[in-house]
This record gives sequence, structure tokens and C-alpha cells, in this order.
Amino acid sequence: MKTYGFGVDIGGTTVKLGLFRTTGELLDKWEIPTRKEDEGAHILPDVAASIKAKIEEKAIDADDVQGVGVGVPGPVTPEGVVRKCVNLGWGVFNVEETLSELTGYPVKAGNDANVAALGEMWQGAGKGAKNVVMVTLGTGVGGGVIIDGHIVAGATGAGGEIGHIPVCDTETIVCGCGKKGCLEQYASATGVVTLTKRTLEASNEPSSLRDLAEVTAKDTFDAAKAGDALAMNVLEQFGEILGKGLASVACVVNPEVFVIGGGVSKAGTIITDMVEKYYTPNTFHACREAQFKLAELGNDAGIYGCVQMIL
Amino acid sequence: MKTYGFGVDIGGTTVKLGLFRTTGELLDKWEIPTRKEDEGAHILPDVAASIKAKIEEKAIDADDVQGVGVGVPGPVTPEGVVRKCVNLGWGVFNVEETLSELTGYPVKAGNDANVAALGEMWQGAGKGAKNVVMVTLGTGVGGGVIIDGHIVAGATGAGGEIGHIPVCDTETIVCGCGKKGCLEQYASATGVVTLTKRTLEASNEPSSLRDLAEVTAKDTFDAAKAGDALAMNVLEQFGEILGKGLASVACVVNPEVFVIGGGVSKAGTIITDMVEKYYTPNTFHACREAQFKLAELGNDAGIYGCVQMIL
Repeated sequence: MKTYGFGVDIGGTTVKLGLFRTTGELLDKWEIPTRKEDEGAHILPDVAASIKAKIEEKAIDADDVQGVGVGVPGPVTPEGVVRKCVNLGWGVFNVEETLSELTGYPVKAGNDANVAALGEMWQGAGKGAKNVVMVTLGTGVGGGVIIDGHIVAGATGAGGEIGHIPVCDTETIVCGCGKKGCLEQYASATGVVTLTKRTLEASNEPSSLRDLAEVTAKDTFDAAKAGDALAMNVLEQFGEILGKGLASVACVVNPEVFVIGGGVSKAGTIITDMVEKYYTPNTFHACREAQFKLAELGNDAGIYGCVQMIL
Repeated sequence: MKTYGFGVDIGGTTVKLGLFRTTGELLDKWEIPTRKEDEGAHILPDVAASIKAKIEEKAIDADDVQGVGVGVPGPVTPEGVVRKCVNLGWGVFNVEETLSELTGYPVKAGNDANVAALGEMWQGAGKGAKNVVMVTLGTGVGGGVIIDGHIVAGATGAGGEIGHIPVCDTETIVCGCGKKGCLEQYASATGVVTLTKRTLEASNEPSSLRDLAEVTAKDTFDAAKAGDALAMNVLEQFGEILGKGLASVACVVNPEVFVIGGGVSKAGTIITDMVEKYYTPNTFHACREAQFKLAELGNDAGIYGCVQMIL
């Protein structure tokens, strides 16, 4: 094993890069803009140039670099082929081969949500575990499933798409995926707002949330923490839907740890406690030992997981 | 790789054994009784003696045996420890070490449902695929999840326990696992009978099923095939519950193939067609390419999967 590795988490606006020791220590991190023009043709050359510059800046022996791990916002096959990353303008091509030619190093690519799960398993909330499910509660609900230390990419790159588990038969609003009643429609930041609005409309119960022009997920969880009964009711609905959804996930892959991350998780242990409250009675008895932990690596989870892929 | 391997599928009544070429060809299969007395202490010695006798009978070079794979009716850790097999009278011990000492061969052990899934992937309905979910519709609903050619055993041996995915909030009957509203309560043979009885009671609609003293799952599916509208309604309910359940499974592990086996699956493609009808609109778009196939190896799936484990 060589001494250094690079993690590269490609997002729609910026590319996050990290220089790591292969023992897991983050030595330096920085960002470059994601140049999406010309169908994203500049992105990987920009990444290669940035890595080369960092090697020179840090006076690292170029032969002492193990490789480069890359996270991309879309499905990736086990061979490293992206099937289309709409956010980057990319078509279908082999990211691993292309970036390897540009850098001279071995490259491994993975889906960004899966790679973040791997990062949390390696150096974050799932440290020490080999079977981890990460749930990212942001604008949508992302997921990453790690079994025996490896990402479950799935047959078409859709492993860990737990945001689209069907949880409600009577939903009238269409999810971004085209279905109705997906987990993401209730457990994402947007979903919490939906639950809140519906709960406010369903009664005349007084609530501090009624004073707000626009309610956010943070408003709801803050109000719940402050003792607002209606907000607490919304939190219970959220916990029931997500807890039952993860109870289903556990019956499939039986993880040691669920890691809960993303913006919504910033509300803290009120989230994990509420999810666990509904998870435990709804899952199979042998799955009840699973732990619920808040993510620890924040936006760095991706670059950590990228490096873990090349080890 | 040596020429021969043994597969040993230990059930509550009989132990099924198979002599295979390691290329996958079943050369001979036979059964011995499962002697459960004395806390199942005779079971593994009986297996070892039966293997030794077969080696002599077939005049096989004892050094040309790759090893022995064992399927057991209960959870097994990755190290080969059974945590209790109630049906065999066993406590907690290492099956792999014990049988290896008795036979002199390397031994791998796995849960019987998971091992059957591996068998179907290797030489059955999932042949050629590496990501397979097997669903066994029998008295209960068993499952096995294979990712990249390997069994997902899970943190506590409960990987693939898809029969206990929560699918109904309003169930009043308790499942064998202690919860209410598990997939198994509707999609097993017993579950189909429950659905049938409830459907018969809910209306006065004429049906050939009303003439039967005791209805079985086979009766319901036979009546559906014969055009009985009420039975067809039950089949639709069954397909909706199982199809949606498998839609959730796909959002976690995104398999190439679902293999449907067990007694209920003997009704044939009417089952897989109906499940697929409800699976497709309910799963994530990238998971819709999954194929639904009837199991091909029947009761031999276990011994095939046992041998695959030692390759």
C-alpha cells in the first residue's frame, strides 16, 4: 500500500478534492468549480490538473500515490461507466479509464451517495462496522448500502435508492421519479414541509408554525424541540414513515448501523430517536440490534469514501 | 480446484446430500434422517459418515474433494457459528469447525434460504446473473439476497428475511415472528388462504371456492386459472402485496433477477406475471428491468448452493 490517495467528489457546482494518507487521515481538502460547458468535457482534465498541482505543491513523491477515487452524481457500473450524469452534462463513457489516462493513476468510480456511505463506514459514524446503510435526508432522500465493506451498486446502479421505496398508496403528488407515495416525499426536507402543511391544514390546533410565512423542515423540528404539539405530531409522522421504511430495508440487508445524514439530520438526535422508536417494533426481531447514528463527516463523507474505494 | 464437492442441506426431518463436480454437475443425491435426539448431537457425525460412505461407494480419490457446503435452518454467522437452530435442537456452536474435524475437508455453512438462492443463481433460474433475490413462498415466506455472487448474511444472520417486511398497518392476526402485518401473512401458502377466506367473507359473490370444506392456496390459484372472478381478485391482492414488497427490496439492492420458488410458485407463471404487474409501477425506474423467473432447481437448490459456497 502506498502512502497517499486522492478523493474526488464531483458535484453539479463544485468538485471537492481531498489528499489523504491511505491510513485514513485527511491531509488537505479544496474545491474547484465544475465546468459543465461542452458536455462537461473539461471536468476530468480539470481534476487531473488539480491533482498534479497538489502533488507538486506538497512535494509528494508521485510514485507514492495509491490512486484516485471518484464520486459522481449518477449511476456507475462496476466497470466505471457512467450511464449519464445529467447534472454534469455527461453522456455514457468510462470515467475510470478516462481519468486514469489523464493522471497515470488507478481510478475507481462510484455513485456519490454510495461513496458517502462508504466514507461514513470507514472513518465516520459507521467506523468499525462492515454492514452499514446510510440515509441522506436532503432535498431528496439518498441512500447507500455497504455490505461486507463493499458498496451495493446494483444491477443498473440503483442500489441504495431507498428514497423511492413505496410507502403510501393514497398520495396525489408525483415524486421526482414519476411515482407517487415514495419515502422521499415525506422524509426529505421538502417532505417534512409537505407533512407540516398538511397537518396545519387538517386542524385548527394552535402552533407557532402558523405564524410563519414559509415553513421549513428546520422550523418544524425547532418547534418540536420547543414543545409545539403540532410540530411534535409532524415529527412523529416523519419518524413513523422513515422508521417503517428502514424496517423494510433491514429485512433485506440486516445492517449493523444506520447512519442518518443530510441537512434534515442537523436537527440532531431528536431525529434518530424518533426513527428508532418506529423502527424497532416494525422490523424483524433479529434486526432490532441495529444502531442509529448521526453522520459525522458532513460534506467530506464523499472524499473519504472515494479514497476507501482505491484501498 | 479439485474435481468433487458435497452439498448438505440439513432440514428438520431429513438431510439432503449431493455429490457434485465442482463444475456444477450433480452426480448423485440421497437423503438421511435428521436425528434430533440428544440436542441434535448425531446430525453432523451422521453427515460425515454418509459422505465417507459415498466416497468409498463411488471409489472417489478422497484427496480430490474440494470441501463440503452445509445449509442449516437458522441464522449462521460469517465464521460458521449457528446461533440456535430450534428445528434441530442445536445450541450455539461452530458448524464449520465441527464438520471439518469430522470429515477432514474444508466446510462452509450458510442459512438454508440464502444457500438456496445461491444455488438458483449458480445453476438455476438466476444462471448468469450475479445479483439475485430469491423468494420462497411456502408455509412462510423465505428470502435470500445474492450480491456480486455472494450471500448477504447480514449483521445478525437476518439478511434476506423479506417475509417480515411490514406491509399492512391494520392487521389483527400476529405473525409467527411476533409482529403484525408482515409480507409473509399474505404471500405465503397460509397467507393466500387468509386472503381467500377474507375475500369470501367480504361478499356474497359466487365462487367455486365456496363449495370447498377447506380451501388451500392451490385451490385459489386453480380457480383463478379456471376463470373464477373471486379467486382472480385474491390473486390480484396477492400480486399487489408481493409486487409492492419486492419493489421495496429492489430499491435497496437492485437485483437483475427475482427468482420465485416454494410450493406456492408451483401455480406457475400466473404468479410471476401478477407479481410483475404490481412490481413495475411501484419500483424505481432504474429497477424496472429486473426479471421475474420461476425457480428451477426445486428442493435441490440448497445442495447446489452449498457446493457453490466452497468454490
